[in-house]
Amino acid sequence: MSDLPREFALIARYFRPLAHKEALGLADDAALLSPPPGRELVLTVDAMLGGVHFLPDDPPDLVARKLLRVNLSDIAAKAATPLGYLLTIAAPHGTKDDWFAAFAAGLAEDQREFGIALLGGDTTATAGPLALSLTAIGTVEAGRAVLRQGAAAGHGIWVTGTIGDAALGLAVLRGELADPILDPASDPTLDPLGHFVQRYRLPVPRLGLRLADFAAAAMDISDGLVQDLGHLCRAGSVAAEIEAARVPLSASARAAGPAWRPDWLQRCLTGGDDYELLLAVPRAREPVLEKEAARTGLAVTNIGRFTLGAPGVTVRGADGAAMTFSRPGWSHF
Amino acid sequence: MSDLPREFALIARYFRPLAHKEALGLADDAALLSPPPGRELVLTVDAMLGGVHFLPDDPPDLVARKLLRVNLSDIAAKAATPLGYLLTIAAPHGTKDDWFAAFAAGLAEDQREFGIALLGGDTTATAGPLALSLTAIGTVEAGRAVLRQGAAAGHGIWVTGTIGDAALGLAVLRGELADPILDPASDPTLDPLGHFVQRYRLPVPRLGLRLADFAAAAMDISDGLVQDLGHLCRAGSVAAEIEAARVPLSASARAAGPAWRPDWLQRCLTGGDDYELLLAVPRAREPVLEKEAARTGLAVTNIGRFTLGAPGVTVRGADGAAMTFSRPGWSHF
Repeated sequence: MSDLPREFALIARYFRPLAHKEALGLADDAALLSPPPGRELVLTVDAMLGGVHFLPDDPPDLVARKLLRVNLSDIAAKAATPLGYLLTIAAPHGTKDDWFAAFAAGLAEDQREFGIALLGGDTTATAGPLALSLTAIGTVEAGRAVLRQGAAAGHGIWVTGTIGDAALGLAVLRGELADPILDPASDPTLDPLGHFVQRYRLPVPRLGLRLADFAAAAMDISDGLVQDLGHLCRAGSVAAEIEAARVPLSASARAAGPAWRPDWLQRCLTGGDDYELLLAVPRAREPVLEKEAARTGLAVTNIGRFTLGAPGVTVRGADGAAMTFSRPGWSHF
Repeated sequence: MSDLPREFALIARYFRPLAHKEALGLADDAALLSPPPGRELVLTVDAMLGGVHFLPDDPPDLVARKLLRVNLSDIAAKAATPLGYLLTIAAPHGTKDDWFAAFAAGLAEDQREFGIALLGGDTTATAGPLALSLTAIGTVEAGRAVLRQGAAAGHGIWVTGTIGDAALGLAVLRGELADPILDPASDPTLDPLGHFVQRYRLPVPRLGLRLADFAAAAMDISDGLVQDLGHLCRAGSVAAEIEAARVPLSASARAAGPAWRPDWLQRCLTGGDDYELLLAVPRAREPVLEKEAARTGLAVTNIGRFTLGAPGVTVRGADGAAMTFSRPGWSHF
């Protein structure tokens, strides 16, 4: 391939080994896909930019895996099973082969982890920062997808896992906060910069829950709990009331937060990058949810309730008063 | 929506009206799609960057339409019918609402033109140039897609339309060349800068040909005829020989090229952005091709033949000697 321009050499060397059998070896203009009978496709797209969604010196393999995982998180929120993805990379001029090798190695690792493969892509060079875009494709049994729309007054508000660790991870990476339990040597799977940074750099999409059995509405938390809960409210034309004290925080967050800054809890509730699921669950379905949580080993926590009223989110503090936020979550503009 | 961050206001105002019914009003994390029974999906993705794939002051509606059309051209090369698309926009900080309005108006115009709709998207702000990525989805009757692979020795090499106009259009936009037949007032559908610029800014995807009836292999010409023909050669493990004099050029190109610069013909054969189809056609199928060309009104031209040999392209000049090229086509690295 040595007579080919570098673009094609990069594709052949680093990306062709990642290709789905239906991607025609990435040697074609397009992939062909025959969806399994009886299943609907779920399509989602997210972009990530250097300096915005990740830091310029984040390891390339983790950037690749985060890009995949934020999209798989959307697939998870629809109760779907991931199938494959298409990817565009606009890499700054002068990006070295080492970078592409590490980026592709990260994709390969998560392809094995999640049972997916590359369906197509496009690689260009840019005068700007690294710009990535990934379209993920999943499938779900027809009629079994769970939507943002569907929350009703009386439904409980539930979240998976813990909230706020990733926001603290960003603070660690910015040098604003030290991780209190930084002993990565004790756990070789932990990020060298600790638990918070791990949650920021390598979110875990909450795939595998049978959401249609218990959730009336679902979405993933990417832009901050408060803001994303507002989206569920608007989609369902309901209000939401949650108690800050019931929002599940990790032991690390409870240990490090209060000493860090007075508004640490607000940061956790609005910081985003959690990639946990946010669910509306009718009371009668709570036993099904709890059984499913036990089956999958995933923690779920009831943090409040949807109520009649204009779409909007009230967060009650420990004193029962509504908390105020300088911003509900992340916006790009 | 006035209490929402600007990102969501932009989506609601400019992009929600473009949404496919299966895109759940763009108010969800993902779109649901039930492919028609008996049909395969065709998936393709292409990125476009300001300053690389279009010029910074190109009109936003035309940038949007080109982004769509370069992807629809890949759908056309698979003999598929377009269905919808997902889009990411990383817009430079300070991009005005006017820009988004014009960009969305361009998308709306081509959605009507091609019978497609928006399935999902993501909008971010960037410190770099405008970065766009579009995933297009089409469908094709199962088993009727045409691939890059399939060219065999003896097959004729055919192209649709004319080659090289877009390369000359880029030269016009760069101030290197004047369009010789610049009378846009005579044709309100013509770009104000003339035919060449029109071909550069607004390619026409060659949809609607029943390629499976006559083509053994197909691709679209995006990076330059010579380079893209090399891809067909490698995919089919054959050599290609074409005659420069048989490559269809527009009357405008024949008029303006020779006075412009000595290597004008090389520029046309390698410049790219043609978005015409490049086909391998067995001799026995030529009558079917010609009938199909007559049915659709699309010009098709035989420019050479695939031959036994190592993958590679020979271009014979008027004197029968092989032409040389400083580069076979476009590469991003």
